[in-house]
Amino acid sequence: MQEMVSTSDNHAVNVAQEVDECQPPPPKRPLNGDSREDIDRDFKFSDRPTLEELHAMHTRFVKDRDWDQFHSPRNVLLALVGEVGELAELFQWRGECPVGLTDWSAKERTALEEELSDCLIYLLRLADRCRVDLPAAALQKLAKNEAKYPIDKVFGSSKKYTEYQ
Amino acid sequence: MQEMVSTSDNHAVNVAQEVDECQPPPPKRPLNGDSREDIDRDFKFSDRPTLEELHAMHTRFVKDRDWDQFHSPRNVLLALVGEVGELAELFQWRGECPVGLTDWSAKERTALEEELSDCLIYLLRLADRCRVDLPAAALQKLAKNEAKYPIDKVFGSSKKYTEYQ
Amino acid sequence: MQEMVSTSDNHAVNVAQEVDECQPPPPKRPLNGDSREDIDRDFKFSDRPTLEELHAMHTRFVKDRDWDQFHSPRNVLLALVGEVGELAELFQWRGECPVGLTDWSAKERTALEEELSDCLIYLLRLADRCRVDLPAAALQKLAKNEAKYPIDKVFGSSKKYTEYQ
Amino acid sequence: MQEMVSTSDNHAVNVAQEVDECQPPPPKRPLNGDSREDIDRDFKFSDRPTLEELHAMHTRFVKDRDWDQFHSPRNVLLALVGEVGELAELFQWRGECPVGLTDWSAKERTALEEELSDCLIYLLRLADRCRVDLPAAALQKLAKNEAKYPIDKVFGSSKKYTEYQ
Repeated sequence: MQEMVSTSDNHAVNVAQEVDECQPPPPKRPLNGDSREDIDRDFKFSDRPTLEELHAMHTRFVKDRDWDQFHSPRNVLLALVGEVGELAELFQWRGECPVGLTDWSAKERTALEEELSDCLIYLLRLADRCRVDLPAAALQKLAKNEAKYPIDKVFGSSKKYTEYQ
Repeated sequence: MQEMVSTSDNHAVNVAQEVDECQPPPPKRPLNGDSREDIDRDFKFSDRPTLEELHAMHTRFVKDRDWDQFHSPRNVLLALVGEVGELAELFQWRGECPVGLTDWSAKERTALEEELSDCLIYLLRLADRCRVDLPAAALQKLAKNEAKYPIDKVFGSSKKYTEYQ
Repeated sequence: MQEMVSTSDNHAVNVAQEVDECQPPPPKRPLNGDSREDIDRDFKFSDRPTLEELHAMHTRFVKDRDWDQFHSPRNVLLALVGEVGELAELFQWRGECPVGLTDWSAKERTALEEELSDCLIYLLRLADRCRVDLPAAALQKLAKNEAKYPIDKVFGSSKKYTEYQ
Repeated sequence: MQEMVSTSDNHAVNVAQEVDECQPPPPKRPLNGDSREDIDRDFKFSDRPTLEELHAMHTRFVKDRDWDQFHSPRNVLLALVGEVGELAELFQWRGECPVGLTDWSAKERTALEEELSDCLIYLLRLADRCRVDLPAAALQKLAKNEAKYPIDKVFGSSKKYTEYQ
């Protein structure tokens, strides 16, 4: 990781170093995949990089190339729409897909990982361009959703779920 | 935050408590907003919640309502497309918008924060459904982009930028 | 129809009158719906309005309200993205849907007809803003697709289909 | 056009023949491009092919390749989302674009014509899969919009426009 950041940015370097240090545990994929409960119970993301670490690295990446000039909010928004389109293309001729995409090839999974990442990168870039503190905003939105969808009113009902959403 | 998570989930409660503890610093917005350099230099997201903390809270939210059954990968993907559409609607009749959206009303900013958050939440939910470790995948994609766009070849050139992207 | 267009526009009025005259046959829906072959064989759109008739009516609609000023190409593009998002929302929690959407309620079908229409209207508006002759362009694209996907190479093969598309 | 359709389909051949016969007038582009009023006044689409003619040709195209089996409503919807994404990519790093896209190269215009066409083709395919008579539905939606946005209430006001839309 260290070689991917400009040495002129101590923050980014530190981030990369720290991220390196905390990287030993490999991506947390389901070990067996055959039990739905196991799948639902076990899956976690890596703790790092955080949203701000990704944001700092991407900000440095853009600055190093003098690309800020192209990143108006609407330019980045359209780039995000483009990436969501590429994500949709991976799913377009498949019919329903099972949780875990157990029948996707390694190549297809890699393509998916890249498109999901591109969506995330442009989403946090858009938040940056709009000066929205995305992690704080998302935390607040989750709290709002908790209040908006009381468990006893919406539990397990697709009808209520559809009406509520 | 603590009241928003089910007490049956120690992990989520702990996350919320920790997030509470690390919350004092308010969202980091530009202080003056009039200097483009200041804006570019100063903006950072909050360090927390991390992607995994948001993921853990949302997983709990969905489980508490027994909504897992509706969250097939393609269902969540279409929900993400819907949220990106709502995000686009906020920008649709405005022409170009300046970095920082300095002319948006407080109400418009709140709507924006919510739509960006909804996009993030469904994006990490989609990654969960696909068993993709999103922070790890994004880190890898940033490294790939570093190699793909060498600074000396693409610096400041919109022409090269357009061709490369 | 006649009352929906400004009497100051003879062209639009004529279009509307002609469309009225050719309207007697109701929307062509499958009569029985139970046979897949019948469904595939019988479904046709109404012959009118044509794309240009819809375009002329919508151009008049926009002019009458002095809304041209808001319809820059990218504004209309973002409006289209918004409508595609609303379309996606109608399909988002349903899992796979059968051809003909035989299990959708009348209310759901009406919502669908409106969203599909909004997408079409903004798509032809975008073509107008870009000065693209959409029917001519689509005819040319269909011809290009015919050449690109030779029947003997791609017939009935999802594998080849996926690779080709 | 005639060579692009299977001779086993008399309807499609007839459509193509008729379309050929009515094709002499070239795509209607603005002649001078320098006057905004001229641009607004003069632009029209070709009268043909109609939506049903395009629909009939594409239906034949799909049948000839036995691709109906891949065209469930949601598969086609995701393909549409993918095409809208490709359309957005053409506009993503440009900032605002003038009506008529007068500064786009011939190559860029061709790409645009193709993406707009792909969006139209998948949109009418989706309508087909849902058994929605798209021209009839769009006519009805335009009438509904006329009633919903009374000229005297919304004329030329971006504020009202934004609130209404």
